[in-house]
Amino acid sequence: MSVASKKGDSGKAYHTECTGDALVTVKAHAKDEDITLFGSCFCPFVQRVWVAFEILGISYKYHEVDPYKKPKELLDVSPKGLVPGLRFNRYSPPRSLNESTVIMEFLEDLASTTTQRSILPPIANAYARGLVRLQADHVNRSLVPAFYRYIQAQTEEKQIEAGREFHTSIEGLVSLFERAEREILALGGTSGEGELESLRRGLGVWIPGQTELSWADVMTAPWLYRAKIVLTHYRGFQMPHGERFSGWLGRLFEHPAFKATCSSEQLYLDSYERYAYNRPNTSMVATAINEGRVLP
Amino acid sequence: MSVASKKGDSGKAYHTECTGDALVTVKAHAKDEDITLFGSCFCPFVQRVWVAFEILGISYKYHEVDPYKKPKELLDVSPKGLVPGLRFNRYSPPRSLNESTVIMEFLEDLASTTTQRSILPPIANAYARGLVRLQADHVNRSLVPAFYRYIQAQTEEKQIEAGREFHTSIEGLVSLFERAEREILALGGTSGEGELESLRRGLGVWIPGQTELSWADVMTAPWLYRAKIVLTHYRGFQMPHGERFSGWLGRLFEHPAFKATCSSEQLYLDSYERYAYNRPNTSMVATAINEGRVLP
Repeated sequence: MSVASKKGDSGKAYHTECTGDALVTVKAHAKDEDITLFGSCFCPFVQRVWVAFEILGISYKYHEVDPYKKPKELLDVSPKGLVPGLRFNRYSPPRSLNESTVIMEFLEDLASTTTQRSILPPIANAYARGLVRLQADHVNRSLVPAFYRYIQAQTEEKQIEAGREFHTSIEGLVSLFERAEREILALGGTSGEGELESLRRGLGVWIPGQTELSWADVMTAPWLYRAKIVLTHYRGFQMPHGERFSGWLGRLFEHPAFKATCSSEQLYLDSYERYAYNRPNTSMVATAINEGRVLP
Repeated sequence: MSVASKKGDSGKAYHTECTGDALVTVKAHAKDEDITLFGSCFCPFVQRVWVAFEILGISYKYHEVDPYKKPKELLDVSPKGLVPGLRFNRYSPPRSLNESTVIMEFLEDLASTTTQRSILPPIANAYARGLVRLQADHVNRSLVPAFYRYIQAQTEEKQIEAGREFHTSIEGLVSLFERAEREILALGGTSGEGELESLRRGLGVWIPGQTELSWADVMTAPWLYRAKIVLTHYRGFQMPHGERFSGWLGRLFEHPAFKATCSSEQLYLDSYERYAYNRPNTSMVATAINEGRVLP
């Protein structure tokens, strides 16, 4: 049975090359570097790491791979054959690292002794870093799985339930932003300007006028972007309303490092059709969601 | 229907106070401090944080709470009413932090500017930190859920399957240790002694002769300890054999900071009976496992 025979499923294949702004960035990072980023054009886990490379100013070569074909060069850097993966070419045999959140922490650590840039608040403000990591933890354990449950839900009843959960999860993230913001305001004149600035920095573009993405901004943007394109199209999803929320989303999507890693909308529409119709063997992430397992 | 009417379930209640070495430690941390650790005597998520406090030398007051009753003071520091939670008493209203891995990172950050102690390899060796975080990620996303699936499995068939998965997960962690070890050996004479020492430190008591716990050691020890006591008793579980593995486990369980946070075996046997018979409403973690969801 062809996958396209499922009602409405036109059988579109996922893309294997970036388009739009992302393609320009790929071409600018085609020459050999110490670090090779193994990525796939549609993958949000790759995009968060890619954005971190851009913000932190760490040199890299972008190398497109097809994670569904699991080529040996990918398995060598990521044992489950999942993207993103990093290969460090200066070693023989080369070293490697996988798992997007582990790579994000690695890049932050690496930048602290090389480019001197940072996405997290300074280590001297451990509490601000804690609040930001709490936001990122919510993204990873609530928002990301909710996104996949929603796009994979097939019956109307399940789609309504999953859509509600996805909304609740976004609201949970907003609550964590608001809490951190309240704690900034509560500082008032009693604390040093340094702590105030550090907490503000930790909130990223949630704060109007801020132009630097926070740790949680980078962690969550790829899924919200796909939600806006893919969930809207396949599920009639509507983003939460509200000036504050829309303003945040606008600043997120317009950030130069984020835009530089975005392909055209069509690429996402085509690549996520397999999820929207929950085709068998769509991906390890899709299978984990179908089986009620932790994402791989 | 009484829970005890389920065949073999004697209806034992979970404990609400530490015993043994842990009780001694609780008594030594009963006076007010800037940081209050909200904990529950049987909870492994609490124990990992507690061990980190001990290793990093950060002052704290230990405050026992019953997470199943969800008292307001706990909800104030941890919105889902889950332990562990931290309350910072110097602020009004007090600030707080929850989620064990977020708290672990917070304590590591805080110690870096106060007690100068550390569990992670130094930031200058970003790669060693990455390898260690990869191990911890495996613990959180594979080993911990596998533990609960195993203890909650009711039919023989499911117990066999879950037991096999738990073993596989432990083997996965060992593979990550072995990989990191190989990369230490591969350094040979080509790299600085600092990097060698940093990687060695990152491997903790996996290395014979080492006495300091690694980040992954702290992350995983509470579940392996409960496995040894609770899974052995209720599931006939056998720890993996092998001198290297047993040696590691021995060094883990005999570490002063770990021992100082352990109650007597009976406390764990009693407290986990509810999981072993998968009683309704055992905990939010148990419900998440039963529903095939990410752990809360």
